[in-house]
Amino acid sequence: MFARFVTLALAAVSVSAARYPSFGTLQTTNSSGVMNVVINNTYSEINLFDLHVQSDLANLIETLQANDTDIRVVVFSSANPQFFLAHIDINYFLPGYESPLPFFDPGIPNMTFPVALLWNITQLPQATIAVIEGRARGIGNEFLMSCDMRFATTSPSVLLAQLETSFGLNPGAGGAMYLAHEIGRGRTFEYVFASKDIDAVTAEKYGWINRAFDTSAELRDYVEALAARIALFPAGGIVGTKAGINAVSRPPMDVIIQQAQNIIGVLAQTSVTQAFSKKFVAATNNQSLGDLELNYGEELVSLFQ
Amino acid sequence: MFARFVTLALAAVSVSAARYPSFGTLQTTNSSGVMNVVINNTYSEINLFDLHVQSDLANLIETLQANDTDIRVVVFSSANPQFFLAHIDINYFLPGYESPLPFFDPGIPNMTFPVALLWNITQLPQATIAVIEGRARGIGNEFLMSCDMRFATTSPSVLLAQLETSFGLNPGAGGAMYLAHEIGRGRTFEYVFASKDIDAVTAEKYGWINRAFDTSAELRDYVEALAARIALFPAGGIVGTKAGINAVSRPPMDVIIQQAQNIIGVLAQTSVTQAFSKKFVAATNNQSLGDLELNYGEELVSLFQ
Amino acid sequence: MFARFVTLALAAVSVSAARYPSFGTLQTTNSSGVMNVVINNTYSEINLFDLHVQSDLANLIETLQANDTDIRVVVFSSANPQFFLAHIDINYFLPGYESPLPFFDPGIPNMTFPVALLWNITQLPQATIAVIEGRARGIGNEFLMSCDMRFATTSPSVLLAQLETSFGLNPGAGGAMYLAHEIGRGRTFEYVFASKDIDAVTAEKYGWINRAFDTSAELRDYVEALAARIALFPAGGIVGTKAGINAVSRPPMDVIIQQAQNIIGVLAQTSVTQAFSKKFVAATNNQSLGDLELNYGEELVSLFQ
Repeated sequence: MFARFVTLALAAVSVSAARYPSFGTLQTTNSSGVMNVVINNTYSEINLFDLHVQSDLANLIETLQANDTDIRVVVFSSANPQFFLAHIDINYFLPGYESPLPFFDPGIPNMTFPVALLWNITQLPQATIAVIEGRARGIGNEFLMSCDMRFATTSPSVLLAQLETSFGLNPGAGGAMYLAHEIGRGRTFEYVFASKDIDAVTAEKYGWINRAFDTSAELRDYVEALAARIALFPAGGIVGTKAGINAVSRPPMDVIIQQAQNIIGVLAQTSVTQAFSKKFVAATNNQSLGDLELNYGEELVSLFQ
Repeated sequence: MFARFVTLALAAVSVSAARYPSFGTLQTTNSSGVMNVVINNTYSEINLFDLHVQSDLANLIETLQANDTDIRVVVFSSANPQFFLAHIDINYFLPGYESPLPFFDPGIPNMTFPVALLWNITQLPQATIAVIEGRARGIGNEFLMSCDMRFATTSPSVLLAQLETSFGLNPGAGGAMYLAHEIGRGRTFEYVFASKDIDAVTAEKYGWINRAFDTSAELRDYVEALAARIALFPAGGIVGTKAGINAVSRPPMDVIIQQAQNIIGVLAQTSVTQAFSKKFVAATNNQSLGDLELNYGEELVSLFQ
Repeated sequence: MFARFVTLALAAVSVSAARYPSFGTLQTTNSSGVMNVVINNTYSEINLFDLHVQSDLANLIETLQANDTDIRVVVFSSANPQFFLAHIDINYFLPGYESPLPFFDPGIPNMTFPVALLWNITQLPQATIAVIEGRARGIGNEFLMSCDMRFATTSPSVLLAQLETSFGLNPGAGGAMYLAHEIGRGRTFEYVFASKDIDAVTAEKYGWINRAFDTSAELRDYVEALAARIALFPAGGIVGTKAGINAVSRPPMDVIIQQAQNIIGVLAQTSVTQAFSKKFVAATNNQSLGDLELNYGEELVSLFQ
């Protein structure tokens, strides 16, 4: 059972070395070469991808980048049963947003901080696995796409989407580009243009996720066994194999910057998107738990009436 | 119901501004940001992709390129129950062919006119959807691949194919390249090398089309709702999202020119292809409705006996 | 029936012209434009991809490269019911390995001999089909990926895998890159990182192979008909179509060299991989038929205890 890992846990992230403020939104435990990371944004009812999660993720990534032998596999899951990881904090696009984080990533000067987070995940020296229970929309789904592997339950709480087009935006961290590789052009256009939710069964059928399981226990047992198996192997093979797969199937850095990130930067400033974003923040009571966040795929139509 | 759109229709294409001769093979109607285009080549029994359709499509594309806000979605369907859009007029490859259209596209000097038509469709500022009832082979299927999304009925009249290899040719507008992205290398080689028909159920299974519906009514209701939803959203998101997806999943322009168009240009002049093309034109009574056009995937063998 | 082809057979490979030593591991027969190649490595119980097979393949490829009209289709199958083609001879990575073959390919100076073999298969002027009965792991599966099309039976003896990560290696001939195109990033990471076997039913579902058949007879009848159909068509279309599909869906040569071949070259020399390779050779009694070779996907765990 997956839960056993918690019992064996050791704290992996050295807080004292953190470059960015620490908010405690990521609970990490290590065992036998596998790090389990539970996303638990206590500043948000919906596991918002806000500055708290971003700051903690950046610190975690620095730790993992420096550790290329002890930890071989990183497994991300969520403490919030309704949300694996919601979209970005929409206030990010609105006037008055303040954050302790730099706008551009110090390591990749032309990449914004959140986009660089996801890019860096794609080239960690570890294998990365997302255990999906609950929703992941917008950059939440882009986070999933930046992981190497994705597994989910067939629970109705699993709803994945790129919702940016409904805001007059595009997936700014390259989510649609990763999707095009997994599910093809036609289905990517359909789901992204329509800002539609996909359920886990259809997501498995199309290749959006690796596999869907009927129960949470089956999901977690499968991922635990998979992670434990990969962690048996020498670290070099993981790094070398990832380099090869990335070389042919990852959107190139400059393409993400120019054809995703910089486009969303322009679109976010248009009056139509500014107005819709404000309307969304108001209608969700600043992104609180409620019908609109839970069922955005269906409820979004109400925002256009 | 989809048919309602016809009632609400407004003529969208200003005929007076047309750059190329108008032949009336495309019936367009607009409603609430969605343009419906019905392909109805009255010069052909099989909705041939001949100079009439090409000329009208070129005019339509110019109109749509200039309209990047009112019309958000373009839906293509066919008035011919047996053919969504047949192959190119094979006479195009034979001596004596005459056309009012230029050989190369004025906007893309190294691209032939029909190839440029399909290229231009891939970068329209609108979302494009094909509603497939009837056959689409050769450039007919390449037209489908140039649309963003493809939906069909499971009717036996839906048969899709790249048939060029049987002529000693290759898909000259990049159809096999788009297919490789949707269905993978292995299945693309199989269907294109063998010039085989694919039915809608298998096409959905492989990802050649987005989805297959049991009835025409289900197909049209689904597409109507999808188009109406996308048309709710600000235009900028459609343009921005399309740019990103194209950047990673569309064959690059120079690859289409050099590795598809220019190769077919050479192959079309070989004696074996000239002979087969003449034989095909004769056997189909110049591409008239009949067994060979209806069931080319099965009947082509007779041409080699 | 497929077997009929043997009766009609003519020896196709001119042994006198062979550039490399001939070992008789490939039995070739030609009929009506189709060459059938049966892999039968009598130097190995498991159809090892050793110097004998490599040498004979190199000679065969030279013959096929020079014959771009008579032979239109090449069908590879195996005489070993348990192994289509096992992995590379692991001694290749160990001290003391001797071979009459050059280390680098004379035609592609920066490519090692076995990697160049597979590269050259991808650009033969013929359509290539693999008829899979039995296992194919490591470079055995990479050989499959270098063929244009792959068909298998659902027999439990069909097990495909990239097993390199378990050795601390990566698929050195680009196998994971081809897989990423066929089955997407997520599933490629899963199967390659975990060095897992995939069965034929799952392989068809994911697109790893074109199709799985319940019986050997169905498999062979299907491929025989497919090959015979393609062989009807003029040779130019096969060459031209292949060039286009390769241009967009084949890993580029320099990417295979730098991001696959050169990485495995470094990893193979690490002490952890040297030790594991020696352990593997000993545990399999130098790659003899036995539990570990038959069921490596399950049995590999024992090597880490």
